Amino acid sequence: MPSTILPESLISTLPGHTYTDPAYFAREQERIFEAMWFCAARATDMPKTGSFKTVQVGSESVLLTRSRHGNINAFFNICRHRGATLCTEPEGEAKRAFQCPYHAWTYDFEGKLIAAPNLTKMPDVDRVEYGLRKIAVREWLGYVWVCLADTPPTFEDTVLKEVVDRLGEVANLDHYEVDTLAVGRRIVYDVKANWKLIIENFMECYHCATIHPELTEVLPEFADGYAAQYYVNHGADFGPEIKGFTIDGSVGLDVLPGIDEDQDRKYYAITVKPQVFINMVPDHIIFHRMYPIAADRTIVECDWLYLPSVVASGKDLTKSVELFDRVNRQDFDACERCQPAMSSRMYKDGGVLVPNEHHIGAFHDWVTEALA
Amino acid sequence: MPSTILPESLISTLPGHTYTDPAYFAREQERIFEAMWFCAARATDMPKTGSFKTVQVGSESVLLTRSRHGNINAFFNICRHRGATLCTEPEGEAKRAFQCPYHAWTYDFEGKLIAAPNLTKMPDVDRVEYGLRKIAVREWLGYVWVCLADTPPTFEDTVLKEVVDRLGEVANLDHYEVDTLAVGRRIVYDVKANWKLIIENFMECYHCATIHPELTEVLPEFADGYAAQYYVNHGADFGPEIKGFTIDGSVGLDVLPGIDEDQDRKYYAITVKPQVFINMVPDHIIFHRMYPIAADRTIVECDWLYLPSVVASGKDLTKSVELFDRVNRQDFDACERCQPAMSSRMYKDGGVLVPNEHHIGAFHDWVTEALA
Amino acid sequence: MPSTILPESLISTLPGHTYTDPAYFAREQERIFEAMWFCAARATDMPKTGSFKTVQVGSESVLLTRSRHGNINAFFNICRHRGATLCTEPEGEAKRAFQCPYHAWTYDFEGKLIAAPNLTKMPDVDRVEYGLRKIAVREWLGYVWVCLADTPPTFEDTVLKEVVDRLGEVANLDHYEVDTLAVGRRIVYDVKANWKLIIENFMECYHCATIHPELTEVLPEFADGYAAQYYVNHGADFGPEIKGFTIDGSVGLDVLPGIDEDQDRKYYAITVKPQVFINMVPDHIIFHRMYPIAADRTIVECDWLYLPSVVASGKDLTKSVELFDRVNRQDFDACERCQPAMSSRMYKDGGVLVPNEHHIGAFHDWVTEALA
Repeated sequence: MPSTILPESLISTLPGHTYTDPAYFAREQERIFEAMWFCAARATDMPKTGSFKTVQVGSESVLLTRSRHGNINAFFNICRHRGATLCTEPEGEAKRAFQCPYHAWTYDFEGKLIAAPNLTKMPDVDRVEYGLRKIAVREWLGYVWVCLADTPPTFEDTVLKEVVDRLGEVANLDHYEVDTLAVGRRIVYDVKANWKLIIENFMECYHCATIHPELTEVLPEFADGYAAQYYVNHGADFGPEIKGFTIDGSVGLDVLPGIDEDQDRKYYAITVKPQVFINMVPDHIIFHRMYPIAADRTIVECDWLYLPSVVASGKDLTKSVELFDRVNRQDFDACERCQPAMSSRMYKDGGVLVPNEHHIGAFHDWVTEALA
Repeated sequence: MPSTILPESLISTLPGHTYTDPAYFAREQERIFEAMWFCAARATDMPKTGSFKTVQVGSESVLLTRSRHGNINAFFNICRHRGATLCTEPEGEAKRAFQCPYHAWTYDFEGKLIAAPNLTKMPDVDRVEYGLRKIAVREWLGYVWVCLADTPPTFEDTVLKEVVDRLGEVANLDHYEVDTLAVGRRIVYDVKANWKLIIENFMECYHCATIHPELTEVLPEFADGYAAQYYVNHGADFGPEIKGFTIDGSVGLDVLPGIDEDQDRKYYAITVKPQVFINMVPDHIIFHRMYPIAADRTIVECDWLYLPSVVASGKDLTKSVELFDRVNRQDFDACERCQPAMSSRMYKDGGVLVPNEHHIGAFHDWVTEALA
Repeated sequence: MPSTILPESLISTLPGHTYTDPAYFAREQERIFEAMWFCAARATDMPKTGSFKTVQVGSESVLLTRSRHGNINAFFNICRHRGATLCTEPEGEAKRAFQCPYHAWTYDFEGKLIAAPNLTKMPDVDRVEYGLRKIAVREWLGYVWVCLADTPPTFEDTVLKEVVDRLGEVANLDHYEVDTLAVGRRIVYDVKANWKLIIENFMECYHCATIHPELTEVLPEFADGYAAQYYVNHGADFGPEIKGFTIDGSVGLDVLPGIDEDQDRKYYAITVKPQVFINMVPDHIIFHRMYPIAADRTIVECDWLYLPSVVASGKDLTKSVELFDRVNRQDFDACERCQPAMSSRMYKDGGVLVPNEHHIGAFHDWVTEALA
């Protein structure tokens, strides 16, 4: 509890140590990122049987690979024998199996132990029990979501519920047919700030007038400081002179055919806790995944998704991508500017949220409960 | 307590862990550097209304700025809203106010909150209560001293008492009129050693014969190993052939007009705990400020101060500056050479002080009491 | 204890945290590397009176020097006065004594305090009591072994016992007259892995077929996965076409004259816990010393020792050295590949040892007992 009584207009943020303490971060890794559904990769990045990617989920290295049945499997990226990292490349194509380069223990794409030196002399070593340790997987929106928990929460009660809370119903996102889109551009940001600062930033628009001149040009209502996330299913209107969601308001790319009339000329944003942000505009989707690395460092991978025909055509995406790339850089600069103060005695009880930001308090409650 | 009984000639230093343990250093930051008067900056570095400097005091970033009334104010360098660092530059000129680059909360040079988006809709947010958090300030010797404590100790009982203990009376320092001098040269040293090693080194001259050949040439009595700080108001005499306090004993710059006859051809040194060293010679002042950064790292900023007319004349200061610059480098090398041993089992109970160094024991007692 | 019941073919390794936890490593430094005999340097690296070397033993800097009597002394590399590091160079030649560069305390090659400023005024400071703190030394196989313990264990019950356990009797090593050999080549490896991973790797050959193609070509039985260390006094036979222990099986250098017939065309390996590996082949000795630096970093210094006449002749040693240099790099890559997994929840209870590796369990028991 803050030590001072705040005026009614203000509520307090989390205390400073929650943004800096390595022990607190370790608990977040365990109770949040390794316990909940985590969006790990774009499924099309693993196009064929044997295509693989290694990603960090919480504190663990996870190996994703497409099986002979076409689905994607996820495993702890660790040989069951002596713990060698199975794949050290970020991505690639495995031929027939994954073979540990230390003692040649070999696993098929379902994770089963299929060969090892002298294995026949160890008949009591079960091929499945000593196969790669499996991780729960779910494909949605064309992304691979994994859950490292022994007993994952349901996808409906967690990920999908975030969409319903924000848009009223999942159908309002389905219209964009995100799973059918192609990656037109991907940018990876290395942000020297705690992941919660990034979420808080994404959740409010009180800063928009100050740091996002290009965005408020396109979405004039943002100048008032109310986030698109403030009202259920609210989309921010494009300005009257704006032709598309581009850096200069010029016309964008081909509109996604499934969206409904309400969704045309509008911008929507969803925060899917704990680590995904989705922005929807008529002609593309901007999809952010955060990978928290340390209390003061977060990798953010951002995809710009367009109709496959747009990407295949080779059309120039620069003006389209530049708008939110600039927004991202402006936001991440702000987050990095806040990180040092988190360890100040001035921030021991946290900072304050103004009325436009009070909804961030629910996020803080969610974090606190998740760690309780 | 040391585990062995020492011969009477020797007393022990602080135990090794006090020079290496991050938790001990954190306590020093809290109980010493953030609790006592700390010399933060030269006042003339902020010449005009709106001139500002950011400095680290203990673990905190402090913003110093000159107000419209001409005095200097000090604030925690943190926006009261969400904790963004207000100024990230080390120094500069603010036009009319300090505006937080995140949400545009704006503060005047007295720290008052004068504007923020939607602030009029938050009438219960007090402009002073939610202004920048003020820090106690005192100008002395032309430097800005700050104290982060809620209830600062008196300047007289602490800083000035150090001068009296050393020189008998403050008047003996006043003669140099340090506040009227100009910075002829500033050198910043990044020393990989604990701040206490640097103080201990400055307090004794038992090492002078070994590592300071140039200094003992100018001040022959230093070859005997007795520090100028050993007797109240003792100044070390220049050698008979020495014309000035310069690297080769050649004539120095214009003598400070206020000094008395006793102070001519003499060198005085004062340690103002916890982080200032002042050296007085007839024609200049050498003024050191330490900024402890970590248990094993200290930034030392050293000013060479001369009559403004000397600095304005463009006279060559090289021979004057080089003498103590060399002394500094010799001393800091020695301190860095001691740091690694502080974690050895051989230093668990500390090292030993010979009779010429016994007065350092009082410094150790002071540190121990400050942390008790 | 592991939480799951293992099949009989498998036994578990140490739990993951023993390879990553800085506190566990600190205990290993104290109870193992600073408590047992530690092989610090090759004696011939200090050829003359006053030759010195500084080496890290556990967490301590140790100064080795050859005295006027020809023997080698070892001291904590710390001045007894204020803790300055006496020698900061890795090796060199001291003229008459070691003089501390801070206050000129001066020690002879036996460590006795022979001079210091004003020392005559401190008659109660004993020259031996305040001499350099001595460390137990033993020369064996031409190497300097030190023990930092106040009461060292006997060399016979520890170091020599390892040789007896492995070779049946010390005589089987004596035949190689290792102390008479010359260093033909020295390579230093900086391995980003815990020292125990390196020992485990050295103790088993289950990985040989996978990662050591050149070695298994020379020693075909290694392809079966049984280490030379598996049976008492077992040496691995060279393949029938193999002429010498070289990268291509070509003829090696001059055979060591003392070895017996059984030792010709054979490879032997000994692990001398906690930090030495010795490989014996007919024409040379490969001698590894580990210097553990951190839980996840170990420096390995490896000497290739030949007859002095071979080294003096300038004969090309490339093919001879390249074989085990490659083996080393292959092994250390494998160890580095295991290190990251040590902190995974998958390795919380450790990995598993197959029957060919069960003897590593005795090493794990030894570590556990040493720290108990």
